Amino acid sequence: MRTLRVIGIGTGDPEHLTLQAVQALADVDVVFVLDKGADTDDLVALRRTICARHIRDDYRLVVAQDPPRERRPADYAATVEAWHAARADLLGGLIAANLGAGEVGAFLVWGDPALYDSTLRILERILARDAGAFAYTVIPGISSVQMLAAAHRIPLNRIGGAVHITTGRAIADGLPEGVGSVVVMLDADPRFDHLDPDLTIHWGAYLGSPDQLLIAGRLGTVGPEIRLQRAAARSRHGWIMDVYLLQAP
Amino acid sequence: MRTLRVIGIGTGDPEHLTLQAVQALADVDVVFVLDKGADTDDLVALRRTICARHIRDDYRLVVAQDPPRERRPADYAATVEAWHAARADLLGGLIAANLGAGEVGAFLVWGDPALYDSTLRILERILARDAGAFAYTVIPGISSVQMLAAAHRIPLNRIGGAVHITTGRAIADGLPEGVGSVVVMLDADPRFDHLDPDLTIHWGAYLGSPDQLLIAGRLGTVGPEIRLQRAAARSRHGWIMDVYLLQAP
Ligand SMILES: C[S@@+](CC[C@H](N)C(=O)[O-])C[C@H]1O[C@@H](n2cnc3c(N)ncnc32)[C@H](O)[C@@H]1O
Ligand SMILES: C[S@@+](CC[C@H](N)C(=O)[O-])C[C@H]1O[C@@H](n2cnc3c(N)ncnc32)[C@H](O)[C@@H]1O
Repeated sequence: MRTLRVIGIGTGDPEHLTLQAVQALADVDVVFVLDKGADTDDLVALRRTICARHIRDDYRLVVAQDPPRERRPADYAATVEAWHAARADLLGGLIAANLGAGEVGAFLVWGDPALYDSTLRILERILARDAGAFAYTVIPGISSVQMLAAAHRIPLNRIGGAVHITTGRAIADGLPEGVGSVVVMLDADPRFDHLDPDLTIHWGAYLGSPDQLLIAGRLGTVGPEIRLQRAAARSRHGWIMDVYLLQAP
Repeated sequence: MRTLRVIGIGTGDPEHLTLQAVQALADVDVVFVLDKGADTDDLVALRRTICARHIRDDYRLVVAQDPPRERRPADYAATVEAWHAARADLLGGLIAANLGAGEVGAFLVWGDPALYDSTLRILERILARDAGAFAYTVIPGISSVQMLAAAHRIPLNRIGGAVHITTGRAIADGLPEGVGSVVVMLDADPRFDHLDPDLTIHWGAYLGSPDQLLIAGRLGTVGPEIRLQRAAARSRHGWIMDVYLLQAP
């Protein structure tokens, strides 16, 4: 049997690995990487550090060049669907060709594999066609949402209240009604003008890395500063990953 | 200066500790425990295992007996507020009395400190009165929500969709409108009859421990089985901790 492990590696700090993840890496034969094109030097560097530290020297690296993807599709769900199908074809082929019987393969997933990551969907899709292709397990990792909260030293929820994790796209028309805490990920261009300026924001970028940035305060007051610092950091690094928590005052 | 570290320890498996948490435990002088009365043998055992493995032998253990708390208060927020004030008094006193200048104290928090845990609020409350009492940092841990997803090998979000994390209390009158994925924690008696039987449920109890239970399927079909298994497990162990994900079909 072929075995795959989907391993959450945290969001920038190699010390975020769990002991379980370290153990799961120890006997890996092949590391599979989905190269999203957008993979920045920093992401590649973290993956390389982790592999060098925790996997035997003779592991093999298999990089799948992600099929191209429309960035602003009219029909989001259908486009992502077609794209996942293409990725499954590609990756299924690579696993069959590169992972021998009895061998162990690993996917190193940024943050936690359960949050806005497509690896699990792709593997399920491969198995839907060929149920015996491999067995796999999932090892959770520290997500950017948790890093945001830890860095600001705050709980995500208000007392007894809900936490709503969503995307920049989904709040383009405003926040969901009656939710005390909203975490926004995947926001390529955070605009705050359509939101209540009295909201409290906790913002973080490059969380877990030495370049970590944190800003917190009243949205109407610190919002413009966040946009400025974000633009400056982005042009300095060539990329940015950031996430923020909005809470009713 | 006195230093405190609030360390997430995961939800039952000592291997869930991150390398960062292991490092943060290495030089701890005092471990503070808020004994919630409800602390089961298993929780105490996990904490003991972690301390024995990762802290020097001569650390000191300080246990704060949690002030009593009304379980079904009329005014939830006000009651919790008064209770937090009492805990802050108690804990502030214990820290002052037991943590020497230059020493390091630790709180070992179940799961992730950012999710339905009061430790951070209590520390902030102590500091609000005495800003120089101590410095503290937060180290994230694997939460039960992540364990649920990893054990079932599923993403929490639908493609591009939101994830709403809430409590049993909050869904007593039904799920929030238009959210694809709802995670329910702190549900002392899950009743599913008021919910759409066509929802998909992923349920997990004792996640991360050797006693882990998992059930998944159509809510109308597996709901009764979950209630049965839950009641049986609860009487077998004397306690239960469980969490579930509901998704539109
Ligand atoms: C495709 S999602 C992957 C999320 C990841 N699986 C996790 O658990 O955090 C990418 C989004 O996660 C957030 N993110 C990931 N890493 C981050 C970091 N180091 N700092 C801030 N935000 C980050 C950003 O909102 C980014 O748009
Ligand atoms: C007071 S909250 C603490 C949550 C914790 N901070 C975390 O990150 O998971 C307790 C709730 O977490 C969930 N929970 C904690 N540990 C669990 C476990 N091992 N298995 C299933 N659910 C768990 C249950 O819903 C329980 O009612």
